[in-house]
Amino acid sequence: MEHDFSRIKAFAFDVDGVMTDGGILCDLEGELYRTFDSKDGFAIRMAAMNGYLLSIITGGRSASIRARAHSLLIPDADVYLSSRRKAEDFDDFCKRHSLDPSEVMFFGDDVPDIEVFRRCGIGVCPSDGAPDAIAAAHIVSDFPGGRGCVRDMLEKVMKQQGRWIFDSMLYSRMY
Amino acid sequence: MEHDFSRIKAFAFDVDGVMTDGGILCDLEGELYRTFDSKDGFAIRMAAMNGYLLSIITGGRSASIRARAHSLLIPDADVYLSSRRKAEDFDDFCKRHSLDPSEVMFFGDDVPDIEVFRRCGIGVCPSDGAPDAIAAAHIVSDFPGGRGCVRDMLEKVMKQQGRWIFDSMLYSRMY
Amino acid sequence: MEHDFSRIKAFAFDVDGVMTDGGILCDLEGELYRTFDSKDGFAIRMAAMNGYLLSIITGGRSASIRARAHSLLIPDADVYLSSRRKAEDFDDFCKRHSLDPSEVMFFGDDVPDIEVFRRCGIGVCPSDGAPDAIAAAHIVSDFPGGRGCVRDMLEKVMKQQGRWIFDSMLYSRMY
Amino acid sequence: MEHDFSRIKAFAFDVDGVMTDGGILCDLEGELYRTFDSKDGFAIRMAAMNGYLLSIITGGRSASIRARAHSLLIPDADVYLSSRRKAEDFDDFCKRHSLDPSEVMFFGDDVPDIEVFRRCGIGVCPSDGAPDAIAAAHIVSDFPGGRGCVRDMLEKVMKQQGRWIFDSMLYSRMY
Repeated sequence: MEHDFSRIKAFAFDVDGVMTDGGILCDLEGELYRTFDSKDGFAIRMAAMNGYLLSIITGGRSASIRARAHSLLIPDADVYLSSRRKAEDFDDFCKRHSLDPSEVMFFGDDVPDIEVFRRCGIGVCPSDGAPDAIAAAHIVSDFPGGRGCVRDMLEKVMKQQGRWIFDSMLYSRMY
Repeated sequence: MEHDFSRIKAFAFDVDGVMTDGGILCDLEGELYRTFDSKDGFAIRMAAMNGYLLSIITGGRSASIRARAHSLLIPDADVYLSSRRKAEDFDDFCKRHSLDPSEVMFFGDDVPDIEVFRRCGIGVCPSDGAPDAIAAAHIVSDFPGGRGCVRDMLEKVMKQQGRWIFDSMLYSRMY
Repeated sequence: MEHDFSRIKAFAFDVDGVMTDGGILCDLEGELYRTFDSKDGFAIRMAAMNGYLLSIITGGRSASIRARAHSLLIPDADVYLSSRRKAEDFDDFCKRHSLDPSEVMFFGDDVPDIEVFRRCGIGVCPSDGAPDAIAAAHIVSDFPGGRGCVRDMLEKVMKQQGRWIFDSMLYSRMY
Repeated sequence: MEHDFSRIKAFAFDVDGVMTDGGILCDLEGELYRTFDSKDGFAIRMAAMNGYLLSIITGGRSASIRARAHSLLIPDADVYLSSRRKAEDFDDFCKRHSLDPSEVMFFGDDVPDIEVFRRCGIGVCPSDGAPDAIAAAHIVSDFPGGRGCVRDMLEKVMKQQGRWIFDSMLYSRMY
């Protein structure tokens, strides 16, 4: 089945289990480190270069998430860390950018993401998401978190909209 | 086969191979770092929020385990590091909380966990546990350590007991 | 199908998704760490010992890439970090070593690598490369990035040319 | 086929691709970090507790290997780092302990290990070893490096010899 992505103007992401495989490396002081995916990263930069709005809404609080967001061209103001009530942060992101919630594709993999699935235009869950999240999502990806889910969906949306355009000059200026 | 989880009031965990895939990252001084799983983590916090008692009983001694336990709402007093005779630590955990051993579900994956399997109510071994541990466990999970075993069983127990309840207000206060 | 590798005198590599599985560990300051593969590493050292030219052309900028290149006997001058227009860096590598582009095998896994695939002799994409890169490559490896792609192809090329020769005396001097 | 392990008195290990999955995490200074496996570790400690001699013979030179060896009860003198000609180090290990080479099981996964396979009693290669190493090994494990190969073989040897004996008192004293 081909989905209709014509309304999508923005992508918002949970982090653990979505932009990563859910693995959290813990150091001696309890600081947490994540492993992101390079091909996800390229697609997110492609979205930024082609005019999509981007946001991260995560329960995580590590400075490493903010650092990664920066390298992915996601504006600092649109990175919500320590998010405990994700629907409120999602509403804030929409309001600040005058987005209708139906124009946002949100990626989540677990119970706290479900309230956002109910508001956003298209809710995407990785293939290895939690059962409740899989049941509540509009689309279950063929790929697991951190291993293709984000890349595959962004590429599909942008190709359907004719906006999967790589400009190496622009890339060298923005990134 | 549907198991009867009605007596379970507490969850106790070995760490390596149970809360992780068994991988141990070693630094130059021999300090060890583990990679935990975010969906396991959510289920353990759900257990804490819904009134279950929680414990870690591990041969590991790294400060990172204590740090991770703290973020999972497991009380410091119930984290047994450098445990060489796990049955004694298991008994201590039960006694301090007036738990009957049959009320505790214990997760282990290797030979030193077997003596706890013989005492606890339900002993769970990940799908990739050591052969002796698989043979001695009451339940062998469909999932490997660090990749779904803990999450799947906690969710099953709590759903059967009608206590898989997510309260985002409580979550934002406790976590 | 047996490919003809007789013209290949040099190997050039993208890093993320080629020499690694695409995973990027992010620390608190945004510094990135990669996990390389030991068997890839052995094959690259074999290439250096048997007289092939070697290059890295990557969008990454981490000092860890330069450090890894050094241990793989890849000359510092042939490591192109922060490469945004890879074709230009590829041309520079060829020109400096008087290589015809057709004499170079290039490994890439994503859209920015495609312009190099169009110039090099043989473009290789890992089995888990991005769809556009797979479509543009001359050879799609049976192995994914960081898990056998580089090793398998280097060994095939060198064995076909009769230059897969391990000399432990030379190895102990060079490495 | 059941192999005859009756002569085996010692285990010697390559590191990368044997005690690990071959992944090498590289930091900014080029220092390398490995991820070991907890169930492998338990089996190696079981071997130490039950009187087997143990050695590491590796091309790696990181202090983290020595640290890991220490925690596995492998004597410092029997850890050969930066080994470029492994047969010589293997001979040295045998001579110092008055072992006949046929009494040693050696684990290796790549070309530099083959010269040891030709001398040792039983040479074991992980399922994902390099083709030349697989061809030269006496036994190809059903398990890959860092994910069961070492554990499975040690457990098989020690069970066949009736020496897979876990003594929690001894374990708490030695480890």
